[in-house]
Amino acid sequence: MEHIAEIISVGTELLLGSTTNTDARDISIMLSEIGINVYYHTVVGDNPGRLKAAVAIAKSRADIIITTGGLGPTCDDLTKQTLAEAFGIRLIFSEEEADRIRSYFERRLSNTHMTENNLQQAYLPEGCTVFHNEWGTAPGCAFVSDGITVMMLPGPPRECISMFRHCAVPYLRSMSDSEIRSHNIRIFGMGESAVEDKLRPMMLRMENPTLAPYAKEGEVMLRVTAKAETGEETDRLMEPAVEEVRKILGDVIYGIDVNSLEETVIGLLLEKDLTISAAESCTGGILAKRLTDIPGASGAFMGGGVTYSNNAKYELADVDPEFLAEYGPYNKETAVMMAEGIKNRLDTDLGIGITGLAGPGSDDTDLIPGTAFVALATPDGTFSRSLQLGNGRERIRTMAANHALDMVRRYLTGLPIEL
Amino acid sequence: MEHIAEIISVGTELLLGSTTNTDARDISIMLSEIGINVYYHTVVGDNPGRLKAAVAIAKSRADIIITTGGLGPTCDDLTKQTLAEAFGIRLIFSEEEADRIRSYFERRLSNTHMTENNLQQAYLPEGCTVFHNEWGTAPGCAFVSDGITVMMLPGPPRECISMFRHCAVPYLRSMSDSEIRSHNIRIFGMGESAVEDKLRPMMLRMENPTLAPYAKEGEVMLRVTAKAETGEETDRLMEPAVEEVRKILGDVIYGIDVNSLEETVIGLLLEKDLTISAAESCTGGILAKRLTDIPGASGAFMGGGVTYSNNAKYELADVDPEFLAEYGPYNKETAVMMAEGIKNRLDTDLGIGITGLAGPGSDDTDLIPGTAFVALATPDGTFSRSLQLGNGRERIRTMAANHALDMVRRYLTGLPIEL
Repeated sequence: MEHIAEIISVGTELLLGSTTNTDARDISIMLSEIGINVYYHTVVGDNPGRLKAAVAIAKSRADIIITTGGLGPTCDDLTKQTLAEAFGIRLIFSEEEADRIRSYFERRLSNTHMTENNLQQAYLPEGCTVFHNEWGTAPGCAFVSDGITVMMLPGPPRECISMFRHCAVPYLRSMSDSEIRSHNIRIFGMGESAVEDKLRPMMLRMENPTLAPYAKEGEVMLRVTAKAETGEETDRLMEPAVEEVRKILGDVIYGIDVNSLEETVIGLLLEKDLTISAAESCTGGILAKRLTDIPGASGAFMGGGVTYSNNAKYELADVDPEFLAEYGPYNKETAVMMAEGIKNRLDTDLGIGITGLAGPGSDDTDLIPGTAFVALATPDGTFSRSLQLGNGRERIRTMAANHALDMVRRYLTGLPIEL
Repeated sequence: MEHIAEIISVGTELLLGSTTNTDARDISIMLSEIGINVYYHTVVGDNPGRLKAAVAIAKSRADIIITTGGLGPTCDDLTKQTLAEAFGIRLIFSEEEADRIRSYFERRLSNTHMTENNLQQAYLPEGCTVFHNEWGTAPGCAFVSDGITVMMLPGPPRECISMFRHCAVPYLRSMSDSEIRSHNIRIFGMGESAVEDKLRPMMLRMENPTLAPYAKEGEVMLRVTAKAETGEETDRLMEPAVEEVRKILGDVIYGIDVNSLEETVIGLLLEKDLTISAAESCTGGILAKRLTDIPGASGAFMGGGVTYSNNAKYELADVDPEFLAEYGPYNKETAVMMAEGIKNRLDTDLGIGITGLAGPGSDDTDLIPGTAFVALATPDGTFSRSLQLGNGRERIRTMAANHALDMVRRYLTGLPIEL
């Protein structure tokens, strides 16, 4: 049976724009991975009347209703009461959940005292499946009523997403007599329309598994999704499809079921026991930030220079000041000197250099914003790319860092590095 | 008259979680600034039937309907057709908009050719107010029908938000015989609950203007909103309220109507013609990235070192290697040496040093993740803070950078710098 889910996010802060609704996004991703359709998201404030109206509408158009937010201890937190009322179910005080809430406060190092209103969170719909909250205080829950599956999750993203992944997804999987699994194929270096062009015959032919492309920031993601009676069977169905995509797209695929280029690069460096450093001009530390976003990056990334001024290029990465005075910093040679300079300075196996114009404004040169040069110094010589990255300061900076990561990935896997 | 708006965001990519609904968030912020209530956000896919159903529901509970997305040239882009049908209005081909679309393609430097389907975007509801798109191709529009104001905006955030600010906000303002204006007061260094405690008597007493707090990432924002017949009158109403907040909260206010700590800091540095550099360990380039997010940062930020390894601390910021060997990098002295080292190395007026443990894991020390040390070297000596920043790698890194920016801001405005 095909399921249709609706996500109702509860919180006045969402309607005021003080918070971004990342919960609905992240839950949608996980629902699509297990093959559950989502036709609507609704956002409603901390107002029981309007929440009740939204639930009535959702009941008429979905068979799974997922709420986020409004489970906390304050008088604004009314999701459980409102949903229980909408479905004619009583709320019961759970001693077990009350104990969990008490011990959460005891575990905390700081001298936070639990106020009594926190125990309001231990009231739960009669007969529900409790989702224990290992990441905060408010438990979530699921129940079935009027043929509709209702799930309530806390609003704070870390709690909401962890609970959805660890409690709600298994619950939803158990509702189905079939297994749905997927693989995410990550691509850098080919645009969405080119990917679609190449894969169109395959996509049209395929029924199970299915293949769908998604554009991400300067990247493309392909999702292969299969449905079968068992997990092993879904894996067996997906294998030839993934293989065919690999054959068609080739080495622009940088990873399968990985989160990002930087995760792939840090993984490869740690695996090969190699170190890296970076000298960044126009990206201003974005590459270093992304590499150090990955826990454990310190085993591979030794550091870098944010060589914004010409003087910093000399002081931190030994770029020849006479060259800079004569030719300026926006050229391939500067990127090469930066990569080699920082590699030598920090005594790493690899070194990256990035220079260019992120705009707006052209900083006294004839070059247009989006012009960038990326170099990778290695024990086998230095490689470089001259790029035109289009418009928009943020996009230009992100793409320049993406290219640097792509060059490292390609070097470490024995692929051609320059464009 | 009180208006109630509903935002309907159209796009299957939102329901799949491939895109975050930042449009609804950013429009909500702007609506709240002009005093228009938002009771619901709805997200619906590229499906005319379901969009029509969502519009029917919105008509029953809002008098302003704002759609985002679905105005583009592809066959999935059906928002105009669907809304026109829902309100019984014809679509008319606009020669003027067609010319604008043609010239948009001609202006572009790249050899992008305009395909004929792009002209579909020139069909607009009969008698509507056209919102010219200066940021892309699809024009937006507004019309009034059945007593409801309908606005349609393109989906790409840059186009949507620019058009909303420059076209929709003035249109909405003109609907009202009163002016609503607001100021955003930005705060760092005092938690949301402390801010609320201090301002509660004032908030309870105030009616026009009103005062509302919002928690942001490690910061608090207060919005003062006034309503009056003229803009001058709103300004006159807000002035004493802003003054009173200043008196109550004092120097934790870092700016009014500014976007971020980094914008304030870059502004102050440029104004005073001072330069800055930074040596970052646990923040791994986040501070440099945030400073260089601000266009024009190169006039003040000269560069920095991402001194992740001990060797990088020595090579890039002259931190004494013997000290590091004996005491390790997680202490105030290291932060001080980093700040002074990078300041001297890059010959800047100010220098920042940040070291600490972002976790997860404790890297062979007894310190817990969240321990961080931030130092600011100045011509008047070096200042430092020893911090416990709580849990979560991302939050710890953001907060450490916030503290560094706060120290610079306080130094440049003659306030006490250490905690």
